[in-house]
Amino acid sequence: MRFDGRKNDEMRKVNITTGYIKHPEGSVLIEFGDTKVICNATVEEKVPPHVKDTGKGWVTAEYSMLPRATGTRNQRDISKLKISPRSAEIQRLVGRSLRGVCDMEKLGERSIIVDCDVIQADGGTRTASITGGYVALYLACQKLVDAKIIKENPVKCGVCAVSVGIYNDEVITDLCYVEDSNAQVDLNAVMTEDGNFVEIQGTGEGRTFSEEELLKMLSNAKKACGELTMLQKEAISKGI
Amino acid sequence: MRFDGRKNDEMRKVNITTGYIKHPEGSVLIEFGDTKVICNATVEEKVPPHVKDTGKGWVTAEYSMLPRATGTRNQRDISKLKISPRSAEIQRLVGRSLRGVCDMEKLGERSIIVDCDVIQADGGTRTASITGGYVALYLACQKLVDAKIIKENPVKCGVCAVSVGIYNDEVITDLCYVEDSNAQVDLNAVMTEDGNFVEIQGTGEGRTFSEEELLKMLSNAKKACGELTMLQKEAISKGI
Amino acid sequence: MRFDGRKNDEMRKVNITTGYIKHPEGSVLIEFGDTKVICNATVEEKVPPHVKDTGKGWVTAEYSMLPRATGTRNQRDISKLKISPRSAEIQRLVGRSLRGVCDMEKLGERSIIVDCDVIQADGGTRTASITGGYVALYLACQKLVDAKIIKENPVKCGVCAVSVGIYNDEVITDLCYVEDSNAQVDLNAVMTEDGNFVEIQGTGEGRTFSEEELLKMLSNAKKACGELTMLQKEAISKGI
Amino acid sequence: MRFDGRKNDEMRKVNITTGYIKHPEGSVLIEFGDTKVICNATVEEKVPPHVKDTGKGWVTAEYSMLPRATGTRNQRDISKLKISPRSAEIQRLVGRSLRGVCDMEKLGERSIIVDCDVIQADGGTRTASITGGYVALYLACQKLVDAKIIKENPVKCGVCAVSVGIYNDEVITDLCYVEDSNAQVDLNAVMTEDGNFVEIQGTGEGRTFSEEELLKMLSNAKKACGELTMLQKEAISKGI
Amino acid sequence: MRFDGRKNDEMRKVNITTGYIKHPEGSVLIEFGDTKVICNATVEEKVPPHVKDTGKGWVTAEYSMLPRATGTRNQRDISKLKISPRSAEIQRLVGRSLRGVCDMEKLGERSIIVDCDVIQADGGTRTASITGGYVALYLACQKLVDAKIIKENPVKCGVCAVSVGIYNDEVITDLCYVEDSNAQVDLNAVMTEDGNFVEIQGTGEGRTFSEEELLKMLSNAKKACGELTMLQKEAISKGI
Amino acid sequence: MRFDGRKNDEMRKVNITTGYIKHPEGSVLIEFGDTKVICNATVEEKVPPHVKDTGKGWVTAEYSMLPRATGTRNQRDISKLKISPRSAEIQRLVGRSLRGVCDMEKLGERSIIVDCDVIQADGGTRTASITGGYVALYLACQKLVDAKIIKENPVKCGVCAVSVGIYNDEVITDLCYVEDSNAQVDLNAVMTEDGNFVEIQGTGEGRTFSEEELLKMLSNAKKACGELTMLQKEAISKGI
Repeated sequence: MRFDGRKNDEMRKVNITTGYIKHPEGSVLIEFGDTKVICNATVEEKVPPHVKDTGKGWVTAEYSMLPRATGTRNQRDISKLKISPRSAEIQRLVGRSLRGVCDMEKLGERSIIVDCDVIQADGGTRTASITGGYVALYLACQKLVDAKIIKENPVKCGVCAVSVGIYNDEVITDLCYVEDSNAQVDLNAVMTEDGNFVEIQGTGEGRTFSEEELLKMLSNAKKACGELTMLQKEAISKGI
Repeated sequence: MRFDGRKNDEMRKVNITTGYIKHPEGSVLIEFGDTKVICNATVEEKVPPHVKDTGKGWVTAEYSMLPRATGTRNQRDISKLKISPRSAEIQRLVGRSLRGVCDMEKLGERSIIVDCDVIQADGGTRTASITGGYVALYLACQKLVDAKIIKENPVKCGVCAVSVGIYNDEVITDLCYVEDSNAQVDLNAVMTEDGNFVEIQGTGEGRTFSEEELLKMLSNAKKACGELTMLQKEAISKGI
Repeated sequence: MRFDGRKNDEMRKVNITTGYIKHPEGSVLIEFGDTKVICNATVEEKVPPHVKDTGKGWVTAEYSMLPRATGTRNQRDISKLKISPRSAEIQRLVGRSLRGVCDMEKLGERSIIVDCDVIQADGGTRTASITGGYVALYLACQKLVDAKIIKENPVKCGVCAVSVGIYNDEVITDLCYVEDSNAQVDLNAVMTEDGNFVEIQGTGEGRTFSEEELLKMLSNAKKACGELTMLQKEAISKGI
Repeated sequence: MRFDGRKNDEMRKVNITTGYIKHPEGSVLIEFGDTKVICNATVEEKVPPHVKDTGKGWVTAEYSMLPRATGTRNQRDISKLKISPRSAEIQRLVGRSLRGVCDMEKLGERSIIVDCDVIQADGGTRTASITGGYVALYLACQKLVDAKIIKENPVKCGVCAVSVGIYNDEVITDLCYVEDSNAQVDLNAVMTEDGNFVEIQGTGEGRTFSEEELLKMLSNAKKACGELTMLQKEAISKGI
Repeated sequence: MRFDGRKNDEMRKVNITTGYIKHPEGSVLIEFGDTKVICNATVEEKVPPHVKDTGKGWVTAEYSMLPRATGTRNQRDISKLKISPRSAEIQRLVGRSLRGVCDMEKLGERSIIVDCDVIQADGGTRTASITGGYVALYLACQKLVDAKIIKENPVKCGVCAVSVGIYNDEVITDLCYVEDSNAQVDLNAVMTEDGNFVEIQGTGEGRTFSEEELLKMLSNAKKACGELTMLQKEAISKGI
Repeated sequence: MRFDGRKNDEMRKVNITTGYIKHPEGSVLIEFGDTKVICNATVEEKVPPHVKDTGKGWVTAEYSMLPRATGTRNQRDISKLKISPRSAEIQRLVGRSLRGVCDMEKLGERSIIVDCDVIQADGGTRTASITGGYVALYLACQKLVDAKIIKENPVKCGVCAVSVGIYNDEVITDLCYVEDSNAQVDLNAVMTEDGNFVEIQGTGEGRTFSEEELLKMLSNAKKACGELTMLQKEAISKGI
């Protein structure tokens, strides 16, 4: 039994609210327990230089936290004139994960930028960002379809993410902040709705981990991602 | 009658939700119609150099907008490596307004930083920031009193703000985005609960304005600020 | 009687020297007592993106102080990699004030940049910048007319600015540094030659202020701006 | 058979030259085929704020590439005023990997910074950086032991890294640039000398991957890391 | 005969106005013809880290140009977030030149910063900066002596600078902008009042130069520096 | 006799290795004793704005040091968000020196960027950069000739550089770090293969210097540059 009453393989309560902000083409508030992330997808009719004139589109992500999303206040990036390296790392992960399920030819030569802004953090902000970002991305793409700008939704299949880890030598799912900061191993799994991997990032924080432990963690991740996929589908069907 | 059905001297619906984010010492979501600003007050046990060793405290504000708070996406400040000059101007205004009602000796040698993050913008973000920021500031101070860190709440009196302006040669209150972008004159009034001014900033955008028009605008502002003061008091009494 | 012998509604000695620097299209040294600002207006045959292809021009301002314009040395902006927020605020005010009296269609698709560089500061640098910047702007525009690049001077009417304030509970005009740093209320009024307002910015530094006090301050401002208008006209007639 | 004649599970020729640069406490040139990285470990008698006064040390890494380490020239970070997000991501990985095998109490309150500068890139720069960085770190620590500044080498066990991937649906080891840029899946495994994981990062670039494929890749990684461990030990014994 | 009527070895008219700005410890406006530079020397009771606790002082310089000191407007450094490399180079030269004649032990553990701000440029801004900067430095030091903060003026001997060059295969002195931009060779000589060199920097712009030409240029420089030394002494005796 | 056994007019052992890095159009490792600089020349089919549409090319240089090229670690420029002023000064010198021997019309409208990255520093890094940079530049140009992109190698004549100085009142050649940091005078001479000057920069660090001493230093420089020219020619003939 975990400190908040969850079983080892149990996720926190997940809520996905679509249409959260009125301006973006796709907008979602996703909550993994007390972690709250606003995911806004913007369509822009231009692409970065390396994609130009290829007929293909581009999907990218930006990730940031409000200064007081956390227990103590973090200075804004602009005050330090440097993007936080942690944010840089996370937004690259989110971008790769979303690109991994998107057919860039169907999207056509335009960009979708998914802004993930954490307004309250309690562990799992990157996995919530991927899971919510996917819904915002899907909805923004669907708007392009509905407006007959593109023919078919370029999203090939669902993608979601969950953190799993080893805490007190037990494998647990969806670590909240207290668990995360004391975990021995922390692994983020990004999975498609059909149970394959888009990305895995596992880190031994306090100790190394064996292949056996890796497999146990991945099994937990698979179960949780199945649940997240259901919630995403439900949110999308409501959000359209 | 205005395009959204309001009378010329009528504010939009204002909501103040306290305890919005769980970590900050004071946290408020303030809504002026579709404008939504998260105001988080943080207490830090240090002061900037110019206040050090004076026994006095400091209150400051930071203001920012999510990239997609607006109709088209704005690049983040960190992407341009420059704080938006508009944000710089606004956060100085918010900071001065809040300092104007705070007794720095009672606060003691510590800082309160009020972060105003606009998650959805529809005009009046700076006046909403001052109005909501005041509530967050008050609550953070009260927490210091409750924890017996300071004896008395250093907030001397209430402060709130409203925009008034001239639109189609008529004086109107609390301009939403559509009105604001077509206004002839735009004036932000920051007022205390007893009807005095902390700051006024009036700008002729499309034309100049006369003293008579100034007085008419200030009269509208006074009425609206009276209403805002009531809502602030109500929110504070619930929030404590 | 004020510490420098002035009456409450008396400005310091104002000098406007045209043709101060040889390269710019319009160049002015303006002195408000010991405050000295070089105002250089540059014509550039391009406009910022938001004006492009509208047939209209643009007027903007930049404001800076030499490191030793003040009693103690200020680090240069470039050393801190940040424009001083105070400078950002002031240059936005100067830009808005000058745009307020300029007909952008008559200017045509070109920009005028007015650089205001304070070489010696003694209070009132922003009002001196507006007052001198106007003269530089006018002269630069006139050069365009003389060169038959545009038909008519796009400046619609004169604009100038003065600071007024409350000091020891008395309303005074054109605060020098010593007065400014101890003022209870500080108000900058930007006025046209026909006595209307382009912008007002009033701030209670030490205390709030009433409508009655506001009107008294504006009355002082009106008187001073009348005098400044005369001096501007004289300088322009000499400078052409 | 791969385009350069290697078998699927065969690494490129690896060379580790110790004492490469004369100034650093530990200095290594590591070559994975045509990939060449200078790894320099510096001991500094200070620690970052979050470790201060804990009696513990800190290990961190910085990663950069010469502008012409690659086929086309990359602008220097300083020209863009931004650290490349890819570099930020990699140096966090290198730092975590090295910290993962270091006993910070034995190191005492000092820092070791491992600079990994890629002078020639041909795929696998991050795994070469970890593998070479470990040797530089070990040698720098040993110098502290030899100088009797610390009692025992704080390095707990060896760590090395290799990239594995799926290319034309086959699992291959140690991808060179041509393979890497066409790989379907790319996985970097950081392993201890006893066959456990410190970190794994797997990314589906062109397609997703299954658990079975993951296990096949990890098996390849394990084999390669065994070989790298041998080479590291040999280099260290020569380098001391 | 040169285009402005000067002989080959003739300087432009040089003016040195002391006490130009009221706040700095030493303040000079120096004019080399149409080149005008404000040189302000500031005394600060602190030293940079590399001098700390040595009992010695430090002298440094900063150099900048107003945006419109030149024929076309230059963007401010802060707009580009980079100090102009040319300015960086010049301020290092000015700093070295002034340090070269200053006894740091006599100065004691304090800094003198000499700000050279070019308000109008017409060639020779760096040599004017050194020549005027010296006078500002001397006066600031003398103020320290007069205030009995130090016993003796730490300036060991006079230093001044002049540009010489080869233009149309003739050696000329003190190049103005038109000459400078078409010169074949450009040499800046920094000399003491007793005819020795503190620094020489000669550059073949359009062609290389021989030792014989070098000697001819240095002979011109020596003559001009003799004259500048006289003017500096005169200015100092008036300025004290 | 010098501390490392050299005679006063003797250079350290110089090695020039061509083809050092495989990607650049010209690549050289140059060693002046323990000073090691990688000089990579890159051809880019574009020119900076000031050369555009002139039919002429451009040659520029960038200079940087690895953090641990020196005895103590230097922070990277990107950590401080400022290019080191010393590097800015040096890369301007290297660029001017290489441009001085290059016929820009023969190069045609393209750029050559010469990156000089110091991997180990022991004095004379700027002179090694010029000497090695020249070889890299020549080889890159020759590649353009061989590929029939241009008709003739635009390099007009050889250029190399050496430092000379006054140490213990004796004139010495090619100062290593220990000598450099204690030298009284330091002069860098950039010379063509026919014995003319492209640039000279002489600085009195501890004291001033006379014309006689200058001539003695230049005589030493001439001798050393003759030797460097031979080594450059040899390297080029091998490198082609």
